[in-house]
Amino acid sequence: MWRLMEVECVKIVPGPASIELGRKIAHLIDVEVVPLTFKLFPDGESYLRLDGDIKGEEVVVVQTTSPPQDTNLLQLLLLCDAVKELGASEVTAVVPYLAYARQDKRFLQGEAVSVNTVIELIQSVGVDRLLTVNIHKEEVLERFDISAESLSAMPLLAEYFLKRGLAGAFSLAPDRGAVELVKETDAILKGGFGWLKKERDRITGEIKVEVEELEVRGRDVVVFDDIISTGGTIATSVRILKQQGARRVYAACVHPLLIGGAEEKIISSGAEDIVGTDCVPGKRGVVSVAPLIAEALG
Amino acid sequence: MWRLMEVECVKIVPGPASIELGRKIAHLIDVEVVPLTFKLFPDGESYLRLDGDIKGEEVVVVQTTSPPQDTNLLQLLLLCDAVKELGASEVTAVVPYLAYARQDKRFLQGEAVSVNTVIELIQSVGVDRLLTVNIHKEEVLERFDISAESLSAMPLLAEYFLKRGLAGAFSLAPDRGAVELVKETDAILKGGFGWLKKERDRITGEIKVEVEELEVRGRDVVVFDDIISTGGTIATSVRILKQQGARRVYAACVHPLLIGGAEEKIISSGAEDIVGTDCVPGKRGVVSVAPLIAEALG
Repeated sequence: MWRLMEVECVKIVPGPASIELGRKIAHLIDVEVVPLTFKLFPDGESYLRLDGDIKGEEVVVVQTTSPPQDTNLLQLLLLCDAVKELGASEVTAVVPYLAYARQDKRFLQGEAVSVNTVIELIQSVGVDRLLTVNIHKEEVLERFDISAESLSAMPLLAEYFLKRGLAGAFSLAPDRGAVELVKETDAILKGGFGWLKKERDRITGEIKVEVEELEVRGRDVVVFDDIISTGGTIATSVRILKQQGARRVYAACVHPLLIGGAEEKIISSGAEDIVGTDCVPGKRGVVSVAPLIAEALG
Repeated sequence: MWRLMEVECVKIVPGPASIELGRKIAHLIDVEVVPLTFKLFPDGESYLRLDGDIKGEEVVVVQTTSPPQDTNLLQLLLLCDAVKELGASEVTAVVPYLAYARQDKRFLQGEAVSVNTVIELIQSVGVDRLLTVNIHKEEVLERFDISAESLSAMPLLAEYFLKRGLAGAFSLAPDRGAVELVKETDAILKGGFGWLKKERDRITGEIKVEVEELEVRGRDVVVFDDIISTGGTIATSVRILKQQGARRVYAACVHPLLIGGAEEKIISSGAEDIVGTDCVPGKRGVVSVAPLIAEALG
């Protein structure tokens, strides 16, 4: 599903955290890449220099804000500000993984609603349009004053499994919040979908999963989520599926943060593989969101 | 020189990077500290919660942005934004060390002028007033739309040496840019001052110091600078002073970043000690800027 598209005069600036993805998008929409000189000073400050003219151009900055979030976010801000200062007529920020998006409300009195600050910061440097992928909660987009859109990479993940012979696999959401995601994958894998009921004990903070019988005996299953962080929820889901007699079980997500021992935890619980997208670069980012972003820009 | 001062109704929020300094300032001006719950999520995101009421209050947030700059800067922004959102009538940001202040102009075409972005970010979260200490270049302050002031900690550093029997010590600036600093210390130590001529070779990037005879034979000398980063310039200065027969040589600065092996480099070049302020917390931040900031807030 990679195709070449014509786009109005646009230049792409791949930021340090998304160099490969930025180049892929530029290739797909056949536009110029503005190379960037990037280094870290010995004290840890980022140095950024654009090696190309962008005066009067529509510029797309591609920079994810996966860990190290703060550094990647600051580079995004420095870059967008520089692009604007150097005379770009319009700046689109493509931020495949938007950091702090889960801190979206004041759960306790006095808390910083961090995603609101991140939105303000992005807007303060003159970004005209934001594109992200599978933001944790869609409602957050409404808080932007600028155009802000979240694309879904779930179809791309489902197609990845389809190509690997997983047609008819069952799509499982590890909790109720991910049901909308598996509806999308089920439209492609067509093996039915379900979800687990997860509850956090308000006193101990412990997460309990209420186990219901799923129609998975002897069948392949993919557990889909937007983010895999420490991997606990996914590992529990995989274990339950194996106990219920599932054949092969895969873990898939858009944003494979995979903190600490997440990969080992998931694999040792019985998963065949962990598949993510290049919203979070790294060895699990095997599915590229470049076609998705290229289409949205086109 | 620690004294108690009366200030209008103000509350101080010490940020995670300046907890001790924030508390010292609050003690000196005798105002309430608003405690902060702070943690890092496993993926590296900062969580901040104010445990006290600040509605309608003038709030002073104290948070330095020394390394890790990006994380400390983001915490500053999250904190100021939260304080404003929670109803503070006025927010003063005390940022003892201002990150990215040395990236203050476009040395090469296409470069990000990072300090300009940092200024925009600070202003975007509703900060009404900024206080910093020995900003690398005073001119940068003019770029703020809000009230912005840089205090000098040089007298505090000089007094530290005065109390340790260094009256009459020679004040040396390691380069021409630091001359204004040693004029301030000389007003207290009264042993005369001078500077070294430093030149960067435009082709090799190597730094050469032109050695002139200084009046230091048999005398105590303190080398003063605003920032000590990798320590190369200071170590060279100390070596030259020892070669010219100086007795005891000390290195002192406001912002002891001391990257990598800087401390060893300076000590092994012959320095007796390295003295810094708590603008950059750590074992070399022995001189507190709390009285300086307390006075400016008073």
